[in-house]
Amino acid sequence: MQEPTPSPSLQAAKSEVERKTLEQRDQMGELERIRHSCAHILATAVLRIWPDALLDIGPPTAEGFYYDFDLQHRFTPEDFPRIEEEMRKVIKENQVFQKTVQTRDEARAYFESKGQKFKVERLGDIPEGEAISFFQNGEFVDLCAGPHVMRTGNVKPGAIKILKVASAYFRGNEKNPQLQRLYGTAFKNKEELEAWLKMQEEARKRDHRRIGAEMGLFAMDADYVGPGLPLWLPKGTVLVEELERLAKETEFQAGYVRVKTPHLAKEKMYRTSGHLPYYAESMFPPMEMLEEDERARRDDLMEKRADLLRLDEGLSNAIGANTSGLTREQIRQDVQRLETEISLLGGRYYLKAMNCPHHHRIFAAEPRSYRDLPLRLAEYGTCYRYEQSGELFGLMRVRSMNMNDAHLYCTAEQFADEFRAVNEMYLKYFKIFGLDRYQMRFSTHDPARLGQKFVNEPELWKKTEDMVRQVLVESGINFVEVANEAAFYGPKIDVQVWSAIGREFTIATNQVDFAVPARFGLTYRDRDNTEKTPLCIHRAPLGTHERFIGFLIEHYAGNFPLWLAPEQVRVLTLNDEPALVDYARSIVSELRNQFVRVEGDLGPNPVKAKIADAESAKVHTMLVVGQRDLEAGAVSVRLHGKGNIGAKPRQEVVADILASIRERRS
Amino acid sequence: MQEPTPSPSLQAAKSEVERKTLEQRDQMGELERIRHSCAHILATAVLRIWPDALLDIGPPTAEGFYYDFDLQHRFTPEDFPRIEEEMRKVIKENQVFQKTVQTRDEARAYFESKGQKFKVERLGDIPEGEAISFFQNGEFVDLCAGPHVMRTGNVKPGAIKILKVASAYFRGNEKNPQLQRLYGTAFKNKEELEAWLKMQEEARKRDHRRIGAEMGLFAMDADYVGPGLPLWLPKGTVLVEELERLAKETEFQAGYVRVKTPHLAKEKMYRTSGHLPYYAESMFPPMEMLEEDERARRDDLMEKRADLLRLDEGLSNAIGANTSGLTREQIRQDVQRLETEISLLGGRYYLKAMNCPHHHRIFAAEPRSYRDLPLRLAEYGTCYRYEQSGELFGLMRVRSMNMNDAHLYCTAEQFADEFRAVNEMYLKYFKIFGLDRYQMRFSTHDPARLGQKFVNEPELWKKTEDMVRQVLVESGINFVEVANEAAFYGPKIDVQVWSAIGREFTIATNQVDFAVPARFGLTYRDRDNTEKTPLCIHRAPLGTHERFIGFLIEHYAGNFPLWLAPEQVRVLTLNDEPALVDYARSIVSELRNQFVRVEGDLGPNPVKAKIADAESAKVHTMLVVGQRDLEAGAVSVRLHGKGNIGAKPRQEVVADILASIRERRS
Repeated sequence: MQEPTPSPSLQAAKSEVERKTLEQRDQMGELERIRHSCAHILATAVLRIWPDALLDIGPPTAEGFYYDFDLQHRFTPEDFPRIEEEMRKVIKENQVFQKTVQTRDEARAYFESKGQKFKVERLGDIPEGEAISFFQNGEFVDLCAGPHVMRTGNVKPGAIKILKVASAYFRGNEKNPQLQRLYGTAFKNKEELEAWLKMQEEARKRDHRRIGAEMGLFAMDADYVGPGLPLWLPKGTVLVEELERLAKETEFQAGYVRVKTPHLAKEKMYRTSGHLPYYAESMFPPMEMLEEDERARRDDLMEKRADLLRLDEGLSNAIGANTSGLTREQIRQDVQRLETEISLLGGRYYLKAMNCPHHHRIFAAEPRSYRDLPLRLAEYGTCYRYEQSGELFGLMRVRSMNMNDAHLYCTAEQFADEFRAVNEMYLKYFKIFGLDRYQMRFSTHDPARLGQKFVNEPELWKKTEDMVRQVLVESGINFVEVANEAAFYGPKIDVQVWSAIGREFTIATNQVDFAVPARFGLTYRDRDNTEKTPLCIHRAPLGTHERFIGFLIEHYAGNFPLWLAPEQVRVLTLNDEPALVDYARSIVSELRNQFVRVEGDLGPNPVKAKIADAESAKVHTMLVVGQRDLEAGAVSVRLHGKGNIGAKPRQEVVADILASIRERRS
Repeated sequence: MQEPTPSPSLQAAKSEVERKTLEQRDQMGELERIRHSCAHILATAVLRIWPDALLDIGPPTAEGFYYDFDLQHRFTPEDFPRIEEEMRKVIKENQVFQKTVQTRDEARAYFESKGQKFKVERLGDIPEGEAISFFQNGEFVDLCAGPHVMRTGNVKPGAIKILKVASAYFRGNEKNPQLQRLYGTAFKNKEELEAWLKMQEEARKRDHRRIGAEMGLFAMDADYVGPGLPLWLPKGTVLVEELERLAKETEFQAGYVRVKTPHLAKEKMYRTSGHLPYYAESMFPPMEMLEEDERARRDDLMEKRADLLRLDEGLSNAIGANTSGLTREQIRQDVQRLETEISLLGGRYYLKAMNCPHHHRIFAAEPRSYRDLPLRLAEYGTCYRYEQSGELFGLMRVRSMNMNDAHLYCTAEQFADEFRAVNEMYLKYFKIFGLDRYQMRFSTHDPARLGQKFVNEPELWKKTEDMVRQVLVESGINFVEVANEAAFYGPKIDVQVWSAIGREFTIATNQVDFAVPARFGLTYRDRDNTEKTPLCIHRAPLGTHERFIGFLIEHYAGNFPLWLAPEQVRVLTLNDEPALVDYARSIVSELRNQFVRVEGDLGPNPVKAKIADAESAKVHTMLVVGQRDLEAGAVSVRLHGKGNIGAKPRQEVVADILASIRERRS
């Protein structure tokens, strides 16, 4: 690879990136301090009301804070106003948060004197030799490393809220006593709190599990199919297939080609990729299956291994002569070699947890030349990951994932253009879905951890990170840079978007890989007739169908734009007069012939009821026809949630529907 | 369900069906007799040439016949003319095939006297008490049940051919001696033999594995992915996706809705469907996986089971008092119940071997009324079947299958219309693919085996079979009826088609199911407010992608029609003059914007070489442009394998290409 040319604009950009990243961190830091302090204020308040409460811990979280208590009284939502009132008193007292450092014995003596047995136990978590720090505000003293705001008065009394109570085991272990966890949140000011509460309320209304059930989009069947394995019902399948169509069309125009690979592979595949053994916990367990000839080979190898182990045992007991001439170290090595060979026999199949290895094998299936590059292999490949059942959550955390995946194999010279094109594809999608708030998170390596967390290729890291940064800057993309969070095999970009109600989702990823193609021995013949290893870009702009659709359900509150709507159009008649029904039927046929998802409601029910039905099914466009429409060759158009927009000539309405679908209007 | 109305036309049709079926059987019987006799004629000839040859057996096959020999001489293709010549002599001698019955001792004595040790062993296969029959022609005597033609002269000397020699173990067991198997074939006359040989030669040229590799359609990767698990390369994926699009469009117009289901399910699913345990051999082995709470439950059940077994052992040894009050029979039942419960715990997942159970669960996911029926659930669902590795064959016999599947749930009244529509869809597809020769094989039950091979519902069998027969007759469909070959749960239709070179493939299936919906407890609420079980039609007109594409490759010899062709159009320039290249590029863009799969070959190579490249890649349409075309706004059109068809205005050519694709012209 060539050395990259230093670029002054890039240097300036890098400083700008660092400044922005630091600014963000500061803002996050302030909120975290407020919330952490609020946890202490909460404990102060609870102890004033219930002096016998035992305390465990109270950290800040991404959404607020909590504190765990053990007390006789069972908290209920009725207690929350009283607790909040007491918290506000503590705030008004404007107590200083005072840090002190104590010896272990002093600390233990203090908590024992207060009967705070959990605190005494927590003391044991602090490694010997480490400072034991306390924070005190007013009468309340807590074992705590901080940081906090300066005074309780730095928290705005109108910007705090207790949210809920839940039970939690001490140290998360169900064998320990059960505690009561009070959750709360706090913001910099009342306006931010209220905006957040409103967003939460809206998010509850838009919960993808609720809307998914109401609209018949997907079903879970833990009993027969298994947890985390959604069944896509007809209306949800429409969403899946429309997204697929969008991706396929976009990728076709961008010069991608498509492939289709099995959902499983032999153990050897994942040993080669490095997913086994390191990633085994996240994979589904293997299917043990041996071909007949492999069974014989396996038996043979197992027997040899047994012979060696017997020999080794003999040597260790110093019985029998060592006629083999092998040292014990040689025996150990031979046993290991046999065990590796046994493990590589074709008998163990795994469901795939990612598509890259299959795509690498497709790259390897034919000899490649520089003329074949860039080669962009795209697939809606299903991946399977074994998430713990407690982690599963609707469509957002599942065990089978349809991924809008592609791997771009290119030369170093082609890399910048390819990477730029991928980012531009992201922006194109954002526009279609009306996502005007987004951010790319550019994760880089940490030079101190080369060879451990990151593949040991310092020059490739520098070169590709510089290339990526330059592309991001030149494309004017909103991004932050985060050190030490790259993938093992190269820098990566995660894409965060904010839904219409301002909730953040990480939906997609774009990664550079300069390591795994080499593990699979992938090469192309270059102009100079030498074999070179291609770079590989992993990218999934629409992430997984499951997660992306979960996001879209919330984003649109189920009110999908016409092109995505499961039922796009419903034709409703004012009555069931035969001539009117025929007219309505001809509209249904005309649209259906153009592949519009259209239904007719042509019976004798009152049109008001028909409209109510269509509204509750979130049908995007209702075409209401009566005698007058029939005579005029017109239809009256109603849009879901927007009401009647008037009668128009039938042909105009049909043309407009088709254009809106074709252009994927929002 | 209602009793079907007797129909006189149906009675007549049934007699016609029986007549045709018998006629077919007779014809097949004659060919089988000829081939079986040829096996004896072959053995006669071989013994005349190599009198020390030991004989095993020589049966007829679907494609001819073979005979297994043990002899010193190694057969080579050079021997075939000599053997055929000797066979023709035997034919000309017009020997009678004479049947005799002998006692076991006589038979053994005879073969022992001849030193025919394999024949002696084969004698042992005939059950005691069964007649031991011999057939003799001329000097040759064989242990044989027949049937044969009357005389060797009934075989036409010009209608036989020795095809190949292969080795085969005695009784197919590799521990037995290896024999030499001579394969031959025979037809009723020379013309039929020659037609068959020509078809075989053509089939070799059209071998889907060869064309698949040459065109880059698919690759096998037994080492990393596994045998029988094809990787679809970009050009093959085009075929997959075009077929999918065809099916989806056709099914949309026919009122199907689509679903998408995971590729795996819990053991309970397949216990309910009845696939487990009976079908376990054909399924991939399970993935053993227990949720945390299930692990506890499992341990608990295992412990209870162990207690019961200990109690039982105590009772059987008559030690200890039986304080449980349980009889040993009760204990046995309890143990069985616990074992069933343990086996149903969610820990065992299977890859799906069929899509029906998942679709049944989607039917069950929402309450259904008669107004929802017919409900037609379609899916390209991937199924996994564990075929023995020796059975795997290219795309024709694989382990993972993308199936053009659908399940139609309907009332008894709707059945005939639904079944008819399915058959009509088959005919529509046949037309698109230019398949003018096809036959449907209507498999019915055998009343004698109700409750064993066939679900014990005599009235439902009669009713649905009558309905199916009536639909087939009324639709004028070419079919034969075969008793005793239905599915367990209802009558079925297999569809046989003949490729362009006359080879027969079974590609699709259409089955009635009146049993499994009940096992899954599927019901709908009928007009009369009672719960009824729907009928279910399983259908897959395009079968599996793998098999159907394997068939299409042979059928088209890789020269796919425009709509299917992996590379549809290539634009070739006479030279690399910038103006010409720009013109060519604008044509490429115009087509690509319309989603045509088009490439450009715009470099300085001579156009002859460019054409040769495109021809060898089987590009359907070549658009050659030179200076004159540029000036005239024209292109010169060449079709793959058909040569130049002249220059035409560019817009006309583009419009024609788009129309041909849209209409799927053959």
